[in-house]
Amino acid sequence: MESEPTRIMMGVNESTIKGYPHASISSRGAFDWTLKKIIRSNTSGFKILFLHVQVPDEDGFDDMDSIFASPEDFRRMNHRNKIRGLHLLEYFVNRCHEVGVACEAWIKKGDPKEVICHEVRRVQPDFLVVGSRGLGPFQRVFVGTVSEFCVKHAECPVITIKRSAAESPQDPVDD
Amino acid sequence: MESEPTRIMMGVNESTIKGYPHASISSRGAFDWTLKKIIRSNTSGFKILFLHVQVPDEDGFDDMDSIFASPEDFRRMNHRNKIRGLHLLEYFVNRCHEVGVACEAWIKKGDPKEVICHEVRRVQPDFLVVGSRGLGPFQRVFVGTVSEFCVKHAECPVITIKRSAAESPQDPVDD
Repeated sequence: MESEPTRIMMGVNESTIKGYPHASISSRGAFDWTLKKIIRSNTSGFKILFLHVQVPDEDGFDDMDSIFASPEDFRRMNHRNKIRGLHLLEYFVNRCHEVGVACEAWIKKGDPKEVICHEVRRVQPDFLVVGSRGLGPFQRVFVGTVSEFCVKHAECPVITIKRSAAESPQDPVDD
Repeated sequence: MESEPTRIMMGVNESTIKGYPHASISSRGAFDWTLKKIIRSNTSGFKILFLHVQVPDEDGFDDMDSIFASPEDFRRMNHRNKIRGLHLLEYFVNRCHEVGVACEAWIKKGDPKEVICHEVRRVQPDFLVVGSRGLGPFQRVFVGTVSEFCVKHAECPVITIKRSAAESPQDPVDD
């Protein structure tokens, strides 16, 4: 009899270039790597917990051209963003379903690095997988990296998966 | 047909308290964690590559009371240390053999953090597992941590396994 499945938490976000519902290159890379190198054929031994954190400040950008005339307009915008986030998660949940790996997925709002570490404390996964763009020190100063923060502060083991050279766009800040 | 096994490199060292041939608490912890949470029942899907790095400067400490009268005495000391290192690796190789996981083990001399990163470049494992004492910032200044260096510089994903609270000795620098 096998013990409880290993619970892997995975932070996923949308593509910086294509936007919702497309997953970022680094999120897809981290997911594919985990399937191939960790889970392998042992699909019943693992459960993936997908967390997508929506940044409140950035949410409005997609609606720059919208006109907000009432509180209802804002509620609609929030609702629309929530739906977009769900479509992002749908991609990962569908992929898990195809290969037969159990999963759960949910959305939170806030600063991704803070929320991920908070959710680690709450959910207590066995480890956390985060994708990374593999930025150099100069770019990191301006962009900040969620992965570095999680490696330092998350209360569980963390594995950071950098994008492969082949998948990295010309501007490494893109994702 | 399954693809090539996932190759996990693991840095292991001797106990700071008990010395050779005893493995450090953090090395044993990282190994046990990897078996339980990653490899699980899929023993044919993984291969563990154990690397033990001996620090040249520290090697002499165990021989403080020895008298060195000839070059031959030094050669004997080096030989003795090599043997001690092999006994450390024997523990891990035996454990792998018991559970049926393929492995390789070898010894290098040098600065552990530099040698581990060098061996990662040479051997190209799928990921690296390192144990950590989980020292606070104050202790880290004096002791230095191999794991932090590897997370930053190793050219493969790195997962750091901290000792559980139950296994940590009173003085966290002990291991």
